[in-house]
Amino acid sequence: MHTIEEYQKLIQSAIEKELVHREPVELYEPIKYTLYMGGKRLRPMLTLLTCDIFDGDILQAIYPALGLETFHNFTLLHDDIMDNAPIRRGQQTVYKKWDANRAILSGDTMMVMAYDFILASPKDLLFEIFTVFNRVGKEVCEGQQYDMNFEKKNNVTLDEYLKMIHLKTAVLLGGSMQVGAIVARTSKNNTQLIYEFGESIGMAFQLRDDLLDAFGDEDIFGKKNGGDIRTNKKTFLYLKALELGSPKQQEELKQLFSIKDKQDDNKVERVLSIFQDLKIEEETKRLMDCYYDKGFKILKKIDLDQNKKHVLVKLAESLMKRTN
Amino acid sequence: MHTIEEYQKLIQSAIEKELVHREPVELYEPIKYTLYMGGKRLRPMLTLLTCDIFDGDILQAIYPALGLETFHNFTLLHDDIMDNAPIRRGQQTVYKKWDANRAILSGDTMMVMAYDFILASPKDLLFEIFTVFNRVGKEVCEGQQYDMNFEKKNNVTLDEYLKMIHLKTAVLLGGSMQVGAIVARTSKNNTQLIYEFGESIGMAFQLRDDLLDAFGDEDIFGKKNGGDIRTNKKTFLYLKALELGSPKQQEELKQLFSIKDKQDDNKVERVLSIFQDLKIEEETKRLMDCYYDKGFKILKKIDLDQNKKHVLVKLAESLMKRTN
Repeated sequence: MHTIEEYQKLIQSAIEKELVHREPVELYEPIKYTLYMGGKRLRPMLTLLTCDIFDGDILQAIYPALGLETFHNFTLLHDDIMDNAPIRRGQQTVYKKWDANRAILSGDTMMVMAYDFILASPKDLLFEIFTVFNRVGKEVCEGQQYDMNFEKKNNVTLDEYLKMIHLKTAVLLGGSMQVGAIVARTSKNNTQLIYEFGESIGMAFQLRDDLLDAFGDEDIFGKKNGGDIRTNKKTFLYLKALELGSPKQQEELKQLFSIKDKQDDNKVERVLSIFQDLKIEEETKRLMDCYYDKGFKILKKIDLDQNKKHVLVKLAESLMKRTN
Repeated sequence: MHTIEEYQKLIQSAIEKELVHREPVELYEPIKYTLYMGGKRLRPMLTLLTCDIFDGDILQAIYPALGLETFHNFTLLHDDIMDNAPIRRGQQTVYKKWDANRAILSGDTMMVMAYDFILASPKDLLFEIFTVFNRVGKEVCEGQQYDMNFEKKNNVTLDEYLKMIHLKTAVLLGGSMQVGAIVARTSKNNTQLIYEFGESIGMAFQLRDDLLDAFGDEDIFGKKNGGDIRTNKKTFLYLKALELGSPKQQEELKQLFSIKDKQDDNKVERVLSIFQDLKIEEETKRLMDCYYDKGFKILKKIDLDQNKKHVLVKLAESLMKRTN
């Protein structure tokens, strides 16, 4: 087994190798900017780690992993245009730094690049990996559409929200692990179970993200608190508060979520105070734990040495405790 | 051999079959709108026809053909956002009918759909078809970037322009034929030659398009004359006129191409008059003929019955004489 740092190094050097000498520079400059910016490299890391725990050759998993990372970054690039988001990972978004056209086209090109990396999968596994990749890709797009729909929809249910984050986040995390298992040529059963494990941890991970956005430590998390509240995003926290709140609280929440001024700190304070009154943090953690437990039940069914399972447990724990 | 109409029917019914029951509707509505809108179905038709002339099973070519058509329509959808184009094929563009976000995301989803269709290629040919598709896809994006660069660039050369239309248009037409040849499992040599044939005809086809935009019959062509002139697009016609014009004509052209008012009919008239003085129509036709002849030289080298070659000649002729 390799360390997380070793996986990240492998990914980083593969990305750098792939991005030299590409023209026109106007097209590849925003792509380099996006892919060099880094981030956690969570998805490709999951692919390499999963391949590794199933005793696969991780060198065979690098390109599929790169495909998943490039696809993920492409979605962020286009999401930032759609959300008018000026900052990503503490830096200007492509759409802000250049313009929407550059962001659209370099995103499109990144998508083709992602498929180019998938094409470099072991040939006999190409069909299987391509199938997973396409299913996940389509679901991520569908998730983003539901997310956009929710901005205009007044009666979003908790179930609809969970379906949306499942599509937008969880399937790609599950898919990243699934691809690693495919490259390792483990059993169909293990491959399916590791997908479901990743999917469950992915749900917990996204809920954790929602929670950190509202209650995280600004200094550690690197974002200003309450970003979702400022943009009136109907997260689990908000929807749960609407469910649990008194008619008066519901009304106040709805009124607060009609304020468009993103600088309104008082609004953030008011919303957070309602969340606290209704113990929304605890409610969210409870649901996170449900997904977390579900993941561990799935893990038990996987045919894998106990010490390898322990690696996955540690990984999931680090994702849940993450401070950035 | 089948007729063009039969190819088009096969494509149409495959598209319709593939677009039922997809959710969320907000995402798939613009996709249906775009794919049902039709157009000439030139690319998939080239794939089926090429497969057919090389005695392949055209039913095996339908999905790869659909992949190429869907990819092409995806690029139009995103190009229309980048160009602020309100009308396409006589109807509102997706970006105008809905909004830019819907157009971005439904375009992205179309791209994944295109790859889904490619995935339905005969399994033993998947790697080869996927490779062609990705190369072409990347080149089309690069071509679009050069096209956007030219808007701001003052000293675009004729060679640069030809490189741009090669990437943006010709490679996809060539690639569509190449994929048909791959499905027909003809020789590597034939496959490469038919690609080059399509590429050359594609260059002539795009020059023809530039010409029709300036000199076409409005009623037949369905677009208002001089669209490229109104948007100050540096086409072959404009660049050739700059090359051939007297210093005074060059200066006037540059001045005319700094006018931003798209309704300025007088500008169009002035530009067309300079084009006529410099015999730009003839110059363009001369270059078209060069590409056309190049295509026919390539055709001679293809190992194929004379009557099948004749089908390709007829096809090329119909593309060159097209009035819509």
